[in-house]
Amino acid sequence: MSDRNIYLKTIPVPEAVATAIEALDRETLIKPEIIPVHEALGRVTAEAVNARCSSPTYHSAAMDGYAVKSDTTFTAREGRPISLSKNGGCIAVNTGNPLPDDMDAIIMIENVVDADSSISIEAPAFPWQHVRRIGEDIVATEMLLPRNHTISAFDLGALLSAGIYDIKVYEKVRMTFIPTGDEVLPFIDRPTPRPGEVIESNSQVFKGLAAGLDIEFTATAPVHDREELLIGAVKTALEKSHIVVIGAGSSAGSKDFTRKVIDELGTLLVHGIAIMPGKPTVLGTAEGKLLVGAPGYPVSAVVCFEDVLTPIISWLSGKHKPVRDVVKAKLARRTPSKPGMEEIVRLAVGQVGDGYIGVPLSRGAGMITTLTKAQGFARIPAVSEGVEMGEKVEVELFSSRQDLDKVLMHVGSHDNTLDTLGDLLMGSETPLRLVSTHAGSMGGLTALKNNMALFAGAHLFDPETNDFNFPFLEKYLPGMEVTVINLAIRHQGFIVPKGNPQNISGIESLGSGDINFINRQRGAGTRILFDYQMNKAGLKPAEIMGYEREEYTHMAVAANVLTGAADCGLGIFAAAKALGLDFVPLAHERYDLVIPSVYLSDSRIITLLDLIRSDEVKNTINNLGGYETPLTGQKMKPGMGLG
Amino acid sequence: MSDRNIYLKTIPVPEAVATAIEALDRETLIKPEIIPVHEALGRVTAEAVNARCSSPTYHSAAMDGYAVKSDTTFTAREGRPISLSKNGGCIAVNTGNPLPDDMDAIIMIENVVDADSSISIEAPAFPWQHVRRIGEDIVATEMLLPRNHTISAFDLGALLSAGIYDIKVYEKVRMTFIPTGDEVLPFIDRPTPRPGEVIESNSQVFKGLAAGLDIEFTATAPVHDREELLIGAVKTALEKSHIVVIGAGSSAGSKDFTRKVIDELGTLLVHGIAIMPGKPTVLGTAEGKLLVGAPGYPVSAVVCFEDVLTPIISWLSGKHKPVRDVVKAKLARRTPSKPGMEEIVRLAVGQVGDGYIGVPLSRGAGMITTLTKAQGFARIPAVSEGVEMGEKVEVELFSSRQDLDKVLMHVGSHDNTLDTLGDLLMGSETPLRLVSTHAGSMGGLTALKNNMALFAGAHLFDPETNDFNFPFLEKYLPGMEVTVINLAIRHQGFIVPKGNPQNISGIESLGSGDINFINRQRGAGTRILFDYQMNKAGLKPAEIMGYEREEYTHMAVAANVLTGAADCGLGIFAAAKALGLDFVPLAHERYDLVIPSVYLSDSRIITLLDLIRSDEVKNTINNLGGYETPLTGQKMKPGMGLG
Repeated sequence: MSDRNIYLKTIPVPEAVATAIEALDRETLIKPEIIPVHEALGRVTAEAVNARCSSPTYHSAAMDGYAVKSDTTFTAREGRPISLSKNGGCIAVNTGNPLPDDMDAIIMIENVVDADSSISIEAPAFPWQHVRRIGEDIVATEMLLPRNHTISAFDLGALLSAGIYDIKVYEKVRMTFIPTGDEVLPFIDRPTPRPGEVIESNSQVFKGLAAGLDIEFTATAPVHDREELLIGAVKTALEKSHIVVIGAGSSAGSKDFTRKVIDELGTLLVHGIAIMPGKPTVLGTAEGKLLVGAPGYPVSAVVCFEDVLTPIISWLSGKHKPVRDVVKAKLARRTPSKPGMEEIVRLAVGQVGDGYIGVPLSRGAGMITTLTKAQGFARIPAVSEGVEMGEKVEVELFSSRQDLDKVLMHVGSHDNTLDTLGDLLMGSETPLRLVSTHAGSMGGLTALKNNMALFAGAHLFDPETNDFNFPFLEKYLPGMEVTVINLAIRHQGFIVPKGNPQNISGIESLGSGDINFINRQRGAGTRILFDYQMNKAGLKPAEIMGYEREEYTHMAVAANVLTGAADCGLGIFAAAKALGLDFVPLAHERYDLVIPSVYLSDSRIITLLDLIRSDEVKNTINNLGGYETPLTGQKMKPGMGLG
Repeated sequence: MSDRNIYLKTIPVPEAVATAIEALDRETLIKPEIIPVHEALGRVTAEAVNARCSSPTYHSAAMDGYAVKSDTTFTAREGRPISLSKNGGCIAVNTGNPLPDDMDAIIMIENVVDADSSISIEAPAFPWQHVRRIGEDIVATEMLLPRNHTISAFDLGALLSAGIYDIKVYEKVRMTFIPTGDEVLPFIDRPTPRPGEVIESNSQVFKGLAAGLDIEFTATAPVHDREELLIGAVKTALEKSHIVVIGAGSSAGSKDFTRKVIDELGTLLVHGIAIMPGKPTVLGTAEGKLLVGAPGYPVSAVVCFEDVLTPIISWLSGKHKPVRDVVKAKLARRTPSKPGMEEIVRLAVGQVGDGYIGVPLSRGAGMITTLTKAQGFARIPAVSEGVEMGEKVEVELFSSRQDLDKVLMHVGSHDNTLDTLGDLLMGSETPLRLVSTHAGSMGGLTALKNNMALFAGAHLFDPETNDFNFPFLEKYLPGMEVTVINLAIRHQGFIVPKGNPQNISGIESLGSGDINFINRQRGAGTRILFDYQMNKAGLKPAEIMGYEREEYTHMAVAANVLTGAADCGLGIFAAAKALGLDFVPLAHERYDLVIPSVYLSDSRIITLLDLIRSDEVKNTINNLGGYETPLTGQKMKPGMGLG
């Protein structure tokens, strides 16, 4: 165990943040600088700013019209106009012109009848009417902005109007990110990774998050797993940055040097925080700067940035921490959580009925797509053992609450045409984001039953009736009025390597014992189809190698076959075609969308159905291969089978 | 009237926006382009993006630890460990390493006892435990992003992980802003404006607002009021921009050429929108681009950008329109509004008691400071004649709702020391924004009575008792328990030009009839003081030239004197000193802060009082001149007078 780090006691995030803030001297670290006002948007004032000039600097016309002496107009009335000579009685002015000497009011052009040499008016002007007085907006020497104020677009206008051209602000916080790892390929080389290699991408996620905080961000090239190289890179970065982040290498592996580097160059403050993902975060100081070991897994790295670095950066820069929009959402699935650690659960969130639903996504810290597919996340506190299905959680949103109105929540079977639909929906007049959670056909029906989705994709075959979906709807959604719309008829079969080297010809081939199968999860329509075919062939689970190994999507099954991790799996033709694999057909089936009829008047469902009935969708589905579209967009009835 | 434009019918803002969108062909205007993924943050996809590689591309260790064959571990139990040889029985792995051939599970390093040549374990490993499968995160060919999707920091991670290095996105919307006007000075020359001149600043406000929408923005140098110059500038701008904005010149003045330019180069769509400020907005098209005449007044220009241009830009760029945080606030003052026009009322907003209060700021469209001092704004609909005091309005906030917790609401008399306090409060450990509305001493007491402020500054002198504030508190806030803390004793007197050319020696001088006085508004403590002294001197309002002309602050009074717009006014020494004017002392008075005692436990008031009692505040006030601080920070009692 000698070459491995074991965590110090993990500490709660707020304590970790407070420890870092305690250890840093902001006044020494972040220097004031003088910059031109027109480049100062978003910067923070280092001292109060006082106006140099007044605005306006003179009494001026506030309207286009005529300047007059108000006491010459007092007798004007409707029906009893008075006339003012342009030769001394009034003077034409445009907005912003100085008020002529001896004049004390402006009459708007709309309120005069204009003749060649005079104007006539039917109402008196009161003194100082439509005159902008000296200093109306800004009086020279008055304080425009206090210290520690973040400069807005409006402030730029006020500062320039007041004749302020330079301003003393705090320098921007500067962060350098150092990716590490022998297995890490620089994305800039546009690599195609081989097994054991990964493309470095966390630097760009951090760059994007840093942009949201308006700090200066630099990423170095990836550094190999050698302590002296890392020390060199950190030393260089410390010279020009306030925060140096070492990407990966903060965990307990034999190549995790971050802690050693901090011990070497400075002082370790925190090793391990009580949050999942994000636990292997390391904090220390060196040369008065903050030295951070960020976890390598992308979601852990994001949590490290958002929960630990963001509050420290906000404090350093004197800006308010950005605030996320929050909604309450019903959790679509029971979500247990380990007590003693706070947990961040990424959620697909959408409006269903009169409330928000949050569907927990996979919890793997290595899955960046759990962030790209999520609309937000919930925090399960350290004291909790988890959240029950249907319980409400507070969701911190990645976008605004209003954007959730444009989310179309699907839970159910996975099919590649859903991606196609999702793309076309974003191209529609009122773009909708299809948020699709793959829980299998049965999972989709359960979601509908619990009012957790707007619609569910299903392809459940019932051998007794030779029909699809309806027998299951009667059994599992009794009393619920639903409308069933066909999306496509699709081909299911065995996905096998190119050339079908093991000559798999049908389900019987799996009984040989030397074919490594990859299965789908329980509740998936494809699993039900497989089990039905397996029983029909007289095979038992124990006779099929890999029967217990489950994947959740057709594409994941195909990926296992592509890489040799499995010899075959049951799936749709489109998945085999996408990865250049061969396909041994087994059955045709109907893939339908099950929609609670109560949602047929929901504008999002209307948009969806309009789209499904368009030629564009049929053509796109036909081009995928492995689909047929004679029923696409039609309302299905019990007993129709394949039409 | 020949050389002036009269508005077309003003139309509601949504109609103006729809007209512009109708007239533009987005597909022709905004072209797709291919850019590197690592530069694509915030850009909008022009087509769906599919993964090129899987992630991971191989089965890999999800934890630091040992890879094992799960079926060799099944008998391990607590108290009945099994041992696995490092020579074939297990293999040490770090997170991310490929799963060794024939191994199918990882045991975490925390769960093994590590010896030199073997490990021992006390629990079995189940198959695929802590293994990241091929494609767990991303399967090659799967759709990562649909079209019209705004690329987030997380998306960058997913795209790079999937081996996507280039991406087809829509080009950014490009806007050119052309300031116009003979009177307009380019800020880049750092001018000191003379009467009739103004510093150009709207271009930078637009630049700041454009930055918030992530569009490309260019501003040209100001163009003089000559039609052919403006046409030339617009033609050049049209070549490289999707939107060309002509700043000012969109109104009805004789030098307002925008409409002519649009008629010359393209098609006029809208002249005049039914919103105040913002009415003189002109929209047209030329060469398929949007041509905009933005009003010259800064607030009108901002409304034009936010309400008209922002939705058009959002539509062009395919992004969601930014959404403002909204709160309900009680309006602190009756606010009448002209029916037929929507009106934007800028508000100082803060939390008082258990709700939010919105204090309407000045309504002049020329006052950029009504935006810099506001926390948000309310919309009074076109059908409304206004809002009553105490009525709740919806406030669109410039910052987040949470920032309102850091606002300290003051309504009352104006004093320069308040600016000083405001600056020091922003420097405190928990920075507070002092939001100070100047309504005079009596206005402050009224605000307290209506529960519209946390505290009020007052300097009300009662000649009968020779005391300050308490007699008024008894009369106007009967039954309200308040605490009165002195901020400073200050010198009031006549602010006169340098050298006092008219030899003003006291209030009697004003009776001469040739001194042009500038007064303060009714309800101001200074006005009450003036009226008291006037009566004592046996003078009447009609005898004092300018008595009816009112300003709202000491600084505004001083500015009138500085520019010769008035010969003298009553105010504090600090205001005279700030503008280099002379000062004829009249009286000393107590400037106190009146705090409802119920707010003494409010953390913001605690911060305020701690600050007022600090030496820092006393020193800063003494340095202003014209103040004395023997009572500063002390609790006042009835009958204390000047102490």
